[in-house]
Amino acid sequence: MTADAETRDATPPDEVDIRTEEGRLSALYVDGVAKAISENDSARVHDLAGDLHESDLGDLIEALEHDDRPKLVELLGKDFDFAALTEVDETVRVQLLEELAPETVAEGMRDLDSDDAVYILEDLDEADRDKILEQMSGAERVALTRSLDYPESSAGRRMQTEFVAAPPFWTVGHVIDYVADTEGLPDTFYEIFIVDPAYKLLGSVALDRLLRARRSKLLSEILEEDPRTIRATDDQEDAARAFERYNLVSAAVVDEAGRLVGVLMVDDILDVIEEEADEDLRALGGVTGDEEISDPVLYTARSRVPWLLVNLATAFFSASVIGLFEATIEQMVALAVLMPIVASMGGNAGTQTMTVAVRALATHDIGGHNARRLIRRETLVGLLNGIICAVVVGMIAGLWFQSAQLGAIIAAAMVTNLVFAGLFGILIPLGLDKMKFDPAVSSGVFLTTVTDTVGFFSFLGLASWWFRLGPF
Amino acid sequence: MTADAETRDATPPDEVDIRTEEGRLSALYVDGVAKAISENDSARVHDLAGDLHESDLGDLIEALEHDDRPKLVELLGKDFDFAALTEVDETVRVQLLEELAPETVAEGMRDLDSDDAVYILEDLDEADRDKILEQMSGAERVALTRSLDYPESSAGRRMQTEFVAAPPFWTVGHVIDYVADTEGLPDTFYEIFIVDPAYKLLGSVALDRLLRARRSKLLSEILEEDPRTIRATDDQEDAARAFERYNLVSAAVVDEAGRLVGVLMVDDILDVIEEEADEDLRALGGVTGDEEISDPVLYTARSRVPWLLVNLATAFFSASVIGLFEATIEQMVALAVLMPIVASMGGNAGTQTMTVAVRALATHDIGGHNARRLIRRETLVGLLNGIICAVVVGMIAGLWFQSAQLGAIIAAAMVTNLVFAGLFGILIPLGLDKMKFDPAVSSGVFLTTVTDTVGFFSFLGLASWWFRLGPF
Repeated sequence: MTADAETRDATPPDEVDIRTEEGRLSALYVDGVAKAISENDSARVHDLAGDLHESDLGDLIEALEHDDRPKLVELLGKDFDFAALTEVDETVRVQLLEELAPETVAEGMRDLDSDDAVYILEDLDEADRDKILEQMSGAERVALTRSLDYPESSAGRRMQTEFVAAPPFWTVGHVIDYVADTEGLPDTFYEIFIVDPAYKLLGSVALDRLLRARRSKLLSEILEEDPRTIRATDDQEDAARAFERYNLVSAAVVDEAGRLVGVLMVDDILDVIEEEADEDLRALGGVTGDEEISDPVLYTARSRVPWLLVNLATAFFSASVIGLFEATIEQMVALAVLMPIVASMGGNAGTQTMTVAVRALATHDIGGHNARRLIRRETLVGLLNGIICAVVVGMIAGLWFQSAQLGAIIAAAMVTNLVFAGLFGILIPLGLDKMKFDPAVSSGVFLTTVTDTVGFFSFLGLASWWFRLGPF
Repeated sequence: MTADAETRDATPPDEVDIRTEEGRLSALYVDGVAKAISENDSARVHDLAGDLHESDLGDLIEALEHDDRPKLVELLGKDFDFAALTEVDETVRVQLLEELAPETVAEGMRDLDSDDAVYILEDLDEADRDKILEQMSGAERVALTRSLDYPESSAGRRMQTEFVAAPPFWTVGHVIDYVADTEGLPDTFYEIFIVDPAYKLLGSVALDRLLRARRSKLLSEILEEDPRTIRATDDQEDAARAFERYNLVSAAVVDEAGRLVGVLMVDDILDVIEEEADEDLRALGGVTGDEEISDPVLYTARSRVPWLLVNLATAFFSASVIGLFEATIEQMVALAVLMPIVASMGGNAGTQTMTVAVRALATHDIGGHNARRLIRRETLVGLLNGIICAVVVGMIAGLWFQSAQLGAIIAAAMVTNLVFAGLFGILIPLGLDKMKFDPAVSSGVFLTTVTDTVGFFSFLGLASWWFRLGPF
């Protein structure tokens, strides 16, 4: 909450707090800005939003009504920080950029680091993107186009092409003077890269290491020879993994020939990690598109319906299993009352296992060395918890329908289903991962099919056999 | 994959690769180390594991059998980097620490930054912790105890108590010389903190800013006056939010009086963000404890069973809804076959909404200004997708059971349930959040209760009324 506390302190007392206690944007503040916009009161808009951090400005843009967004940009004029666009949802960004004049956008992006500029441009369609690029200087355009040529979600897209590089024969003193005297260095940097004349990366020197060295030392004497590097074509998730694993704050990005082409910064990696975790979570919840909370109704509905239809197919499949036992149910309706319990408990237990497995796969915590142990563990956990749930469900069902036999049958079905749930809760994600599918996306639907089918079949089948009812 | 590629390059050709192509620990490598341990071959263990990065060493420890772990530490002796213990699961860490002599641990922790030392000590029980602390020097013990006194999951627990501070009247040149001449500065730092004699924080100077300034400038002239600071008692998640929002790499931690007590580093924040996303994901999957994949069967089963029992209660509740319609089902068994479809589709659609809502709450993207819009959107999405699913399910069910009326009834029930699913999928997390409960943990169970109940009741109720069957 400190950040918010400070924002409050920085605001004069007669102003509205921009964030509530919980760190959310204050509705009062947003309304104030919207009112100033509707009155075309440029001075008031500057007062309220002229000095915001890019991140707060981004939140404000999202909170405003659709039509007020371009007006805010116009009213703020030169004071609008385009970096704020890196903080808003894709839908909002694309819509807003389409409504602004290409010259305004090109002008606003002049001061951005290349990674922010690429982030803003990459989701536009090519025609819009080209219109903006045309308004830029040749050098800027070349640098941005080169980044945009790397595949989506690659390190090349996320990297910043501005960095500080020096030859190995410079002294520490020389570099320090160079940094002090040179205009146009990147806004922020944490290390100096040491390169040969062809820009092949020889090593790096972190700033704290530079400061600790004598001025007379050569860079070649103090450089770290094998810094962790990222290839521009590497996936951003692999880059994030390397940052996490080796506690990096920045890393050189090199091309196929080992030449330095950019630098990845940890703040971008934070976004990648958040995005990645988000994707897994949404995928497990059946939200598979790149839906955002600012999306309109139709778009949201359309992006969610395929998943529902897939599930509908599996629901019909489990219904057909029940259909096999129509005659059985007709003779003993209690079975219809109890059968969803067995199926749903299997689903719950299986989801527990699947969640752990999917997350462990995402963080590379499952491998050849422990997969077998995990399969054994999950099956045994299913067996143990199956027994516990079986005792409870058996007693309650037995008492409810005054039939110890029915209690025993639902108990047996429960154990069976929870063992299957544990086994398939881990086998399905492992199998999908082995076949190079994303286990977060489709494990759930396969798992439900298994737990519903096994749940209905074991319970109804056992009952039908024991009470000599129905088809078998 | 770059990191792995390098690890490979760094390994002499006759050695085994420690990681597979996918970035997981190689089973061959782990077996090699296990063999060397079982043969007490210290030289071979040093060869294989003596130079590992702390993160790789951590993964190796987790991959080894329980009994081999303390042996690895002994065989590596002085070359065992205790920082590796920050990279392993809590269960593994606690067990391993309990088996090592307190002197060994105290000795090994001497070289660690304070945040790593606290991380390693915090999960031990107090007796074990005190035994280790006793072996340390007074100054170390005081610093660690002070951090450990802050609440669990607070910024004070995660901070590093080593930092570089300077008074405002020093010149840039003076600081640079001080850094070059002083032994015992922290391993890594990205900024210099400017403090008054009472250690009250006056501002900060990032290293790149320091390097850009003339040697003769005073720190007071170049310092950033209002750096984002974190209070030691703040929750680590709030600190993470501030790092993300304002793209920080380190931040001063201050006590209630505004005195500088430590510094938070972005690599620890990466772990916090990962942890936080992990918690949400597990909670949604019904894994509520702090279970880890290295946990044994019994522990895992015990931590998962409460969630299953809660779900069992709700399953019985929905079963009791079905029980109301026993007479209806007896007369028309097709209802029993179809009813799980309505309930399960409601569960799926509701989970989609709930997932989006829980995540948006976690990242503070829902607030007063958009909650109403989201409730409207989710209800409308439920209506639209309800109609689409209703058409499909109505046609198939109608054809299957040769009854257009049955098709119409299941269609109507489907629309009803999906509207409720959308509405409650958002209202439940919002309500729980308002009442200060974690929406990720319990939204699911309430939601299933709603979608099952509404699903069974609307379908069976409509059928019973239309066909004049059963109780109503």
